[in-house]
Amino acid sequence: MSIFQSRQDRIYDWMARENIALTMLEDTEGRRDSGIRWLTGQPGDALLFLTVDKKSLLVPWDINLAKLYAHTDIMVPYGEFERNPVTALKAAVDYCKIPLQSRIEIPSDMSYVLFLKYVEAASDFDILCRSEGIQKAIQELRAVKDEEEIRIYRKAAEITNEIIDLLEENIRREKLLTETDVALFIEAEGRKRDCEGTGFETLAAGPDRSFGIHAFPSYTGQPFIGPGFSILDFGLNYSGYTTDVTLTFARGPLSKSQEKVLTLTEKAYKLALSLVGDGAGTRNIAATVDNFFGKSRKIMPHALGHGIGLEAHEAPVLRNRTDNDTILRPGMIFTLEPGLYDPILGGCRLENDILLTGTGAEVLTTGRIIRL
Amino acid sequence: MSIFQSRQDRIYDWMARENIALTMLEDTEGRRDSGIRWLTGQPGDALLFLTVDKKSLLVPWDINLAKLYAHTDIMVPYGEFERNPVTALKAAVDYCKIPLQSRIEIPSDMSYVLFLKYVEAASDFDILCRSEGIQKAIQELRAVKDEEEIRIYRKAAEITNEIIDLLEENIRREKLLTETDVALFIEAEGRKRDCEGTGFETLAAGPDRSFGIHAFPSYTGQPFIGPGFSILDFGLNYSGYTTDVTLTFARGPLSKSQEKVLTLTEKAYKLALSLVGDGAGTRNIAATVDNFFGKSRKIMPHALGHGIGLEAHEAPVLRNRTDNDTILRPGMIFTLEPGLYDPILGGCRLENDILLTGTGAEVLTTGRIIRL
Repeated sequence: MSIFQSRQDRIYDWMARENIALTMLEDTEGRRDSGIRWLTGQPGDALLFLTVDKKSLLVPWDINLAKLYAHTDIMVPYGEFERNPVTALKAAVDYCKIPLQSRIEIPSDMSYVLFLKYVEAASDFDILCRSEGIQKAIQELRAVKDEEEIRIYRKAAEITNEIIDLLEENIRREKLLTETDVALFIEAEGRKRDCEGTGFETLAAGPDRSFGIHAFPSYTGQPFIGPGFSILDFGLNYSGYTTDVTLTFARGPLSKSQEKVLTLTEKAYKLALSLVGDGAGTRNIAATVDNFFGKSRKIMPHALGHGIGLEAHEAPVLRNRTDNDTILRPGMIFTLEPGLYDPILGGCRLENDILLTGTGAEVLTTGRIIRL
Repeated sequence: MSIFQSRQDRIYDWMARENIALTMLEDTEGRRDSGIRWLTGQPGDALLFLTVDKKSLLVPWDINLAKLYAHTDIMVPYGEFERNPVTALKAAVDYCKIPLQSRIEIPSDMSYVLFLKYVEAASDFDILCRSEGIQKAIQELRAVKDEEEIRIYRKAAEITNEIIDLLEENIRREKLLTETDVALFIEAEGRKRDCEGTGFETLAAGPDRSFGIHAFPSYTGQPFIGPGFSILDFGLNYSGYTTDVTLTFARGPLSKSQEKVLTLTEKAYKLALSLVGDGAGTRNIAATVDNFFGKSRKIMPHALGHGIGLEAHEAPVLRNRTDNDTILRPGMIFTLEPGLYDPILGGCRLENDILLTGTGAEVLTTGRIIRL
């Protein structure tokens, strides 16, 4: 049985328990949902319909592409439905002979305006749009990676680590000078190694710009290295899954305050790593790190980490917020990325990807602070 | 008066007409809205609140970045509101002293699930989430570019055209061999010329892959040129605004059927251009091109074109669909991009950016079919 079939089966089970006759997922501009890729392998724009009697119907924008990638029972080009998702839902209901009054679940991120259109168009059915619906169910399943995903991640991390070493070497030898040099080196070396690309826009910020949590623009023609801190945040997408690491390059002479920022960041990272384990509460881990920084009167202006996968940000989140009750479980893959930012001192962040196994935390990547 | 102030004033006028006391916009992961950049210059994650008595309040994720870019009356870091948009809305209502029972408009792409949370949190107010609401109003204003935007577009097109010539030259001389070579050349040459980057992920597809409307992956380490059609679709982002062009490279020997695809595409492009003008209906233009292809029993599997601006796709749309009643007006900037795709023959697309002026269509870019 293919990995896609086994993932679809888990959703069919969930649908049976929830008494849902038909679910719809949508992956389109402005409403991206990599759940369709997770369930079928289809990487591009499409609708996906699943029925409780275990049929999958894909409606891709580009049927030629779908034929190469997608694993589903039936495929119908989107053009058949005027490229209109409401029209496609109505056709799917007819085609799959969904009984009147059945429960049909649409994505929980569906807009209020469109939700009303679905309700109007399918008034003989019970249209559900729930925060604890199909998308949440998939999100929770995806938070714990399966064997195939862990296999992909080991390869993605291997490529990422090779490129980290090449970056350090080429930056030390002054072969990569500008932010653009560094970012395009990653892009080229990644694609050479069969990556689909970078997992998100590489952030390469020299000392003048490293104070930004996410520098804007993401990289420029300016020098990457200079006195102070330079931040390089990137990921490589291998078979759809992205890594996410941040290196900080520090060229002296550094002030005492700058040295302290480096030391605090490294200590915060080690502290976080020591707290990671099966059953650990992510809010508590993040709060402990926030308190550690607080003792030195420093504030980290972002979360401690986040799950990675087909998305650069997915479940679990490691955030010190009252609404976060996420517990770490074996199979989760997530970042730890403490950082501090100051318009005068510059910014410093250290980020690696962690796989939680049955026996503890395995650090997959070799992100580090590099003193030049 | 700054361009941002004058844009905000147009929204204040709209709010007064619509009897809206407060509007909120949100630009965040999964709910991107470049309207905030259009109104304030703020390029990154933020909430924006506007009051009918002409106050603007920005809530940026990164206050240091916002101080460099944003033009608003007040700025408060998102951290003050637990990085929760509902909490921020409640604080904005208090701070701006919005009278009870007033109409407050939230974005029309707000999810149904979140809409219910806003309604619950601000039950003393009339929360509006309308398809014809604030986002539509901004979209319609943005569809007609102002002088500043047209100035930026002339520069963006100049850079794009320079790079098109360099691409042709370097591909002819076999200096750019793989899809990755071509894509990264564009990225590097663009950033050298002060572009923020490419406007979207460059699609470079050699003859084996050009049949995909949007090739996946977007570019690889494989050769870009070979016998048949290669498609190169890219844009350059200058000051936030992106161009969008597609070149097709055709290397012979070509079959008769392939020659016909090239000729039909070029003719369809000229036909479309001849129909563009003040007052022309975009549905009619797109339908005429579809009919032209239909006479040769060819089907174009996508729309004829789309507006460009801060987004790679924005109003107006040039699409042959019954719900499209868009009329072209001077100041609009949009693509024309007829294309044909076939798993055997390959894909061919020709795309340029058109500015409609008071006197007619001005073709800003020099996208073309290049016979090698």
